[in-house]
Amino acid sequence: MRRLHLSVAVLLITSPLINSFAQTKTIAERLGYPPDSKLLIIHADDLAVAHSEDAASFDALDKHAATSASIMVPCPWLNEVAAYAKQHPDADLGLHLTLTSEWKTYRWGPVESKDKVPSLLDPSGSFWPDTNQHNLKPEEVEREIRAQIELAASMGIHPTHLDSHMGVLFSRPDLFAVYVKVAHEYKLPFLAVRSADAPKELLAMLSDRDLILDSIVMADPKVDSSNWKAFYANAIKNLKPGVTEIIVHLGHDDAELQAVMVDHPDYGAAWRQRDYNVVTSPEFKKALQDNQVILIKWNDLKKLLN
Amino acid sequence: MRRLHLSVAVLLITSPLINSFAQTKTIAERLGYPPDSKLLIIHADDLAVAHSEDAASFDALDKHAATSASIMVPCPWLNEVAAYAKQHPDADLGLHLTLTSEWKTYRWGPVESKDKVPSLLDPSGSFWPDTNQHNLKPEEVEREIRAQIELAASMGIHPTHLDSHMGVLFSRPDLFAVYVKVAHEYKLPFLAVRSADAPKELLAMLSDRDLILDSIVMADPKVDSSNWKAFYANAIKNLKPGVTEIIVHLGHDDAELQAVMVDHPDYGAAWRQRDYNVVTSPEFKKALQDNQVILIKWNDLKKLLN
Repeated sequence: MRRLHLSVAVLLITSPLINSFAQTKTIAERLGYPPDSKLLIIHADDLAVAHSEDAASFDALDKHAATSASIMVPCPWLNEVAAYAKQHPDADLGLHLTLTSEWKTYRWGPVESKDKVPSLLDPSGSFWPDTNQHNLKPEEVEREIRAQIELAASMGIHPTHLDSHMGVLFSRPDLFAVYVKVAHEYKLPFLAVRSADAPKELLAMLSDRDLILDSIVMADPKVDSSNWKAFYANAIKNLKPGVTEIIVHLGHDDAELQAVMVDHPDYGAAWRQRDYNVVTSPEFKKALQDNQVILIKWNDLKKLLN
Repeated sequence: MRRLHLSVAVLLITSPLINSFAQTKTIAERLGYPPDSKLLIIHADDLAVAHSEDAASFDALDKHAATSASIMVPCPWLNEVAAYAKQHPDADLGLHLTLTSEWKTYRWGPVESKDKVPSLLDPSGSFWPDTNQHNLKPEEVEREIRAQIELAASMGIHPTHLDSHMGVLFSRPDLFAVYVKVAHEYKLPFLAVRSADAPKELLAMLSDRDLILDSIVMADPKVDSSNWKAFYANAIKNLKPGVTEIIVHLGHDDAELQAVMVDHPDYGAAWRQRDYNVVTSPEFKKALQDNQVILIKWNDLKKLLN
C-alpha cells in the first residue's frame, strides 16, 4: 500500500460559527497592517529529519527565503537543529509534533519510554510508518507530545508554534483535542486553517483567542515536476487577503536524502531540492514583491497571544 | 573533554592459564588449515550508523574487501542494513552491541523502553556520549543488549558474532560477564583477544570452548593520515600465525558523514574514506596474497561452536 506523506493532511477547519466568538479585528489589523493585507508565512517542515534537510532549511532561513520552520523532535538530527537555534535566537522555529516514522530505510521512535506509549509503536519499536491510526490512544499521544515539547525546551529550543507531522493530530477529534489542549497550556499558536465545513465537535475545542489561518498552500503529487515554479508563482499571484502559510519541504537531492526517501518520489529528495530551488530563486522573491505580499513569522502570531 | 572513540578500547585479554583448558588444536587446525596459518578477518564496524557508512561497507563486503562487519542495532539506518542482510544471506554480519551515542549533531537511544534502562541514558534520553561508564547497571546493560539481539532477529538478521561498540562491554568485569553470558546463551562467538596479562576475574568467565583471537589491528589517532597505506601494509607484513582481526571503519567523506562526525577528525569522515580506500585497493589485495594470508569470516568460527 502506498504510504502517504501528509504534512498537513487534514487541517482543522473552522466554520463561520467560530467567528462570532472571535476578535473583531483581523490578524492583519492586530499586527498593524491594513485589513486587506496579504500576510504570508513561508514554512519549512521536517527539520531534524536528516542533515540534508537541515542544511537546506537553515540556508533558506538564513536568506529569509523561509520565514519559519518546524522541528521533528524525535529525529536523529535534533542536536544539529538545537545548535542552530542557539546560534540564531531570532530563527522562527516551532515543533512539528511527530507520531510517524514513514521512510523505509531510516526510522525513529518516541521520546517517551516505549512502554508508556505502546499504541504509537510498530512491532520494531519505531513509530508507525503511516497515518492509518492503528488505534493510537489519545492519552499516549498526549504523553508523547508533552515529552517532545519538554525535550526541546531542555535543549534550549523555545518554540514559536506547534504543528503536526503528516497531519496525525488533525485526523481525529480526540487527537485534535489533545493538540489544542497542550498548545493552550504552553501558550503557543498552532496550525489550524479556516474553512466552511468544520465538524462542530472540533469547533467546540477552540477558543476565540486562537489564531486561525485563512489558507494553506502546499505542493502535492498532482503537481508535475516541470510545473514546480509555475505552481508557486500561481499560488503567490492568487493569494487572498488574510494569513496564508506556504508549506515547503527543503532538502538537497544528495546521497543521504535519496537513501532516506528511496522508492518514494512524492516528498522525496528531488522534490525537496525543487522546493529549495524555488523558494531561494530571485523569481520567487520578485513575485512576492510584485504581489505586495507581507512576510510574517509564527512569532508575530505568538506575540498576539501573550 | 575529548570524546574517545574506542571501538575496541579494552579488549579482553586471556592468559596462558586459559590455554590449559582450551582445545588442544588451534583454530586454524580446527578449520582445516596448517597450524602456522595466518588467518585474517577484515571487519567493518558501525553498520547502520549512517547511510554513508552502510554504502561504503556494503560495497567493501560485495567486493570481498571486507570479510565481515557488525551492526549497531539502535541506530537509525538499521532497516537499510536489514534489507541488505536479507538480499545477501551469505554476508557475515554480527552485532556491534551499542551502549553509547558519541556524535554531537546526531544521536540515538536504546532499543529497550527508556524507563527500563535509565543508567544507560544521558539527560536527553540518548545513550551517554562517552565511555566514562556513568554507573551503568549491569542488569540494565543485559536488558538492552538482549533487546538489541531480539530486535535484529525479528528483522531477519541472523548474526554471526557479537562485539562491543567503543569497547564498553570490555571495560568492566561485570559488563564483560553480561557479554559472555549472553553470547554463550545465543551460541554466538564474540570478540575477545589473547594476551598475557589478563585479570583472573575475567578469565573465570570464559569457557574452554570460547574462540579467542590472537591479535587485533586497528588504526588509531597516532597514525598520520599520510601513512595510512603504510600502516596497513606493515600490519599485513607483520601478521603472525593465528587469528587476527583488522578492524576498519568504512565510509564516504561526504556531506552526511562530515556532519555526523563534525569537529571530530579521529574516526571521522575522512578517516573512514581512507580506510575504505585502503581495503578496496589493489595494493592491499596484493599484500594479502604476497603474505599468504587466509581470509576467514566470523561464520567460520561460529560453525566450530555448533
